[in-house]
Amino acid sequence: MPILNKDMTLCISLAARPSNIGTRFHNYLYEQLGLNYVYKAFAPADLAQAIAGVRGLPIRGAAVSMPYKEDVIALVDRMDPSAAAIDSVNTIVNDDGVLTAYNTDYLAIARLLADHEVPPSSSVLLRGSGGMAKAVAAALRDAGFSDVCIVARNEGTGRALADLYDFDWRAEPGMATADLLINVTPLGMAGSEEDVQSFEDETIAAAQTVFDVVALPSETPLIRAARAAGKKVITGAEVIAIQAEEQFVLYTGVRPTPEQVREASEFSRS
Amino acid sequence: MPILNKDMTLCISLAARPSNIGTRFHNYLYEQLGLNYVYKAFAPADLAQAIAGVRGLPIRGAAVSMPYKEDVIALVDRMDPSAAAIDSVNTIVNDDGVLTAYNTDYLAIARLLADHEVPPSSSVLLRGSGGMAKAVAAALRDAGFSDVCIVARNEGTGRALADLYDFDWRAEPGMATADLLINVTPLGMAGSEEDVQSFEDETIAAAQTVFDVVALPSETPLIRAARAAGKKVITGAEVIAIQAEEQFVLYTGVRPTPEQVREASEFSRS
Repeated sequence: MPILNKDMTLCISLAARPSNIGTRFHNYLYEQLGLNYVYKAFAPADLAQAIAGVRGLPIRGAAVSMPYKEDVIALVDRMDPSAAAIDSVNTIVNDDGVLTAYNTDYLAIARLLADHEVPPSSSVLLRGSGGMAKAVAAALRDAGFSDVCIVARNEGTGRALADLYDFDWRAEPGMATADLLINVTPLGMAGSEEDVQSFEDETIAAAQTVFDVVALPSETPLIRAARAAGKKVITGAEVIAIQAEEQFVLYTGVRPTPEQVREASEFSRS
Repeated sequence: MPILNKDMTLCISLAARPSNIGTRFHNYLYEQLGLNYVYKAFAPADLAQAIAGVRGLPIRGAAVSMPYKEDVIALVDRMDPSAAAIDSVNTIVNDDGVLTAYNTDYLAIARLLADHEVPPSSSVLLRGSGGMAKAVAAALRDAGFSDVCIVARNEGTGRALADLYDFDWRAEPGMATADLLINVTPLGMAGSEEDVQSFEDETIAAAQTVFDVVALPSETPLIRAARAAGKKVITGAEVIAIQAEEQFVLYTGVRPTPEQVREASEFSRS
């Protein structure tokens, strides 16, 4: 029987509604790589006291999910540029009591745009204006994309995000087309809107690359339609895997192989 | 591969120098009893922040060891009589944010005196005046023992403990005899004084029952000599197992069988 030991390093997640994905991803890789770490998800009773616990126990790293990504800013010591760029934290690293906040969603999106060789000269339709849309918009701007239109029914958040980076805004996709389509809304997500395709077939036909940040399911109506049309696709499952890989590297200092990340990602979703 | 899951309840220990014993004892029983719990030892960076983490994450229970048993009193909400009797805490239970402090060493000693049917009319020589000696003295008094002599070279702590319960005090055992001998000093413990027998053969010969709180090793020179003399013995291993069993019950609400406690205790020391 495997058993925990006293010298294990603890990493955690903090979310109002924890999933098993991070717990399974990280513990799988700790086991595969022979690291004396253990990962446990928490639904905190009190965020400030939970962060005090990160310092005091101590805990090496903490993933931060909804609804704590902004509230946690006041509780850390340092903001990495990835988190400062979008005023949103999804990862805290504890170095001998000094807490540094990162946003590995931003890092993952930046890496995916580069890995999939999407040219920064591409025109972009970015659908959504929530927290993850901010990460995508910042990553686009920082990668040199300038022909970007934010599509968001909420004019307040949509215009604000567009104005921040000198992008355009429109309420609905309508007849607009672009080289790169990115969905960052819940459209297509398992639940009430899972049958909704977030961009129309005609819009997909005019695009080169289709990127859906929705991860559950990874094959959303948008991704299925883009595959059927022969387009290059980037899925939310890739975002989740890469942002988790970057968290893993920040916590442990060890970078798993792409094969190990793929296995851990599959295991985490099984 | 077994893997942690998001719904697991965490219990911890807080000690300057954690051992693996609690980690192995509790995780073994969680596994045997099919409880969705996990146990992890910590050497806290900051006690107050660690206790904040117990509230904020939340953590269900925390074992408290040296040097935190008194300092933690100011950080909890309620003192159970077992901890209040000796101003010393070794267990914290978190009920929806309300932290109650217990001392299961006290509970274990009280239970062992009752289980081994030591009559409260017995005369007692209690060697030692530290924290554990306070727990033993309080348990003796509360069980109705009154003919008790504290044996302690440190006159300050020895007399103070004796005066608290209207017991006697002497600096050395000398020629004194009693029905019940109890060692609560490090004499006989693995380390520098492991060959020292804390009571003389003549004293053992005059006693009915010999109780050594030293747990590592469980067969101290005192226990070996008492067994050789045909005396009833109570060992430190029993104290550790029962105090851990009482912690387990407080955390989970489930009482393991004596056989399960014995197995977990053996596993924890293997």
